[in-house]
Amino acid sequence: MSTARARRHRRSREAALTVTVLFAAKPESWADYAAPLRAAFAEEGLDAALVTEAAPETVDYIVYAPSSGLEDFHPFTRLKAVLNLWAGVEDVVGNPTLTVPLARMVDDAGLTQGMVEWVTGHVLRHHLGMDRHILGQDGVWRRGAPPLATERRVTILGLGALGAACGQALARLGFPVTGWSRSPKRIEGIDARSGADGLAAALARADILVLLLPLTTETENLVDAARLAELPEGAVLINPGRGALIDDTALLAALDAGHLAHATLDVFRTEPLPPEHPFWAHPKVTVTPHIASETRPASAARVIAANIRRAEAGAPLHHLVDRARGY
Amino acid sequence: MSTARARRHRRSREAALTVTVLFAAKPESWADYAAPLRAAFAEEGLDAALVTEAAPETVDYIVYAPSSGLEDFHPFTRLKAVLNLWAGVEDVVGNPTLTVPLARMVDDAGLTQGMVEWVTGHVLRHHLGMDRHILGQDGVWRRGAPPLATERRVTILGLGALGAACGQALARLGFPVTGWSRSPKRIEGIDARSGADGLAAALARADILVLLLPLTTETENLVDAARLAELPEGAVLINPGRGALIDDTALLAALDAGHLAHATLDVFRTEPLPPEHPFWAHPKVTVTPHIASETRPASAARVIAANIRRAEAGAPLHHLVDRARGY
Repeated sequence: MSTARARRHRRSREAALTVTVLFAAKPESWADYAAPLRAAFAEEGLDAALVTEAAPETVDYIVYAPSSGLEDFHPFTRLKAVLNLWAGVEDVVGNPTLTVPLARMVDDAGLTQGMVEWVTGHVLRHHLGMDRHILGQDGVWRRGAPPLATERRVTILGLGALGAACGQALARLGFPVTGWSRSPKRIEGIDARSGADGLAAALARADILVLLLPLTTETENLVDAARLAELPEGAVLINPGRGALIDDTALLAALDAGHLAHATLDVFRTEPLPPEHPFWAHPKVTVTPHIASETRPASAARVIAANIRRAEAGAPLHHLVDRARGY
Repeated sequence: MSTARARRHRRSREAALTVTVLFAAKPESWADYAAPLRAAFAEEGLDAALVTEAAPETVDYIVYAPSSGLEDFHPFTRLKAVLNLWAGVEDVVGNPTLTVPLARMVDDAGLTQGMVEWVTGHVLRHHLGMDRHILGQDGVWRRGAPPLATERRVTILGLGALGAACGQALARLGFPVTGWSRSPKRIEGIDARSGADGLAAALARADILVLLLPLTTETENLVDAARLAELPEGAVLINPGRGALIDDTALLAALDAGHLAHATLDVFRTEPLPPEHPFWAHPKVTVTPHIASETRPASAARVIAANIRRAEAGAPLHHLVDRARGY
């Protein structure tokens, strides 16, 4: 018997009862997730019925996306836990009907890897001044190399799994990286700051500012007119975190005043960003359609299956959301 | 006495005779290099007269750029060595009047670092499909994240200092990197191939192909119609190496046929690229003005000063050009 088969065999004896897992996300996600989740459940030896509809009182676990429309968790009387498909939980964490443990999607390798690629790519795009050449194929040979990365300071607000990984990737490329987080942290390669003084220092040296904070009552509109004014003249803002971290009106004013050189935004208060929103037409704004980091079905399914397996074994969930902190 | 002062003092006693160093490059380079070279000579304890004009028979060393127009080295009867300002030596290596040692610019930290940044940035630009968003700010929310780097194969032709550093930086970001060089090499993180079979294998897996070969009689037009045909459908070509590595006509044909998706070119047979050249107007070509890697005056000056210091001490030059190989 192969090792994997032996493990499945052992696990299936341990967890003999069928658990019912309700997949509550947009219908189009079902096509992406059904097969990977079933494969991951089998690999974990979970005897699980994966369904998109069920009588609420029969459901053990919910694989959840807020966009599913499911908002009342009261009828799910047997519910053991809710497993969020995404990293952000701001649309569910305050739901008073949700009283069982809530886990966020955190260490999905694809989520972190995709974010590192998107952030590194867009930092280099601005650092190298690529747009000058992508948009300016007019026969004019414009000499002049950019400064080296060692002369371009990057600040990352938010030092969770994503912020830390992005900061370290940029530091390996030579950028001096400052990070900021609510609570003090130590991360190799990053000058990590915290607190109000730390934020001011981190903003003052942000030639390129990357937002990777969770959205909480404390971080909403954190990047407002006053904080934008603390950035160096000509700074670039990159937001793959959450749209509501930024005061949109203040951002547009800072761009129009020439204080900021560019904003590349992947997340917005309303998504899809409405066609009439001024971000689309602004020459100093690049809109990308919330693609910086997408949960990849295969790796996300493994994270979810492993967490259900932990719960069935009586172990606490990984990446449990702290309701008081909001993430 | 400080350590640095003591070293200068010791060195100035060792090399007491003034050497004459002729700076032979374009006049506009003089403004960039004069101060850094003087500072580097002082730091090395070299008593050197740095000049832009001198009687040929009084010159000990020439800091050289082929664009200087200096082509006849015969009158420099006391010349000990020529120190090329750039990595490429194809315009001087075959000069029959040059009989003294010729050194290339190699381990200038800025040269390598700048190349790594440019190559990483442009690989990520194509990998992430950035142009779709930079050029398409039309209010249309185009869903769809790119594959992860682990699913995008990069091949680098040329595994010298630049090719190896770029390949390793890309491998650290998750790209599977294949390399190819004339002679067999072992480089951590890179699947290094050599020889004719190795070239075919390296091309066949090049979703993104990066050219960092030296220009020699063997590599001129290496990327011709037959080799372009070996690339996977939809491949992207990135050339920060030398313009003449590519058969321009074959490249345009492969782009027009849709076999190649894009070419980003930093180097050309004629530079500046003439405004009427079809590369400028081609929608699948990005021209950048030979900025991928520029020698940075401060670090390049240190390399040159250290090499003159070696020569004065009777040691062989670093990065000596092998005239038979051509680099």
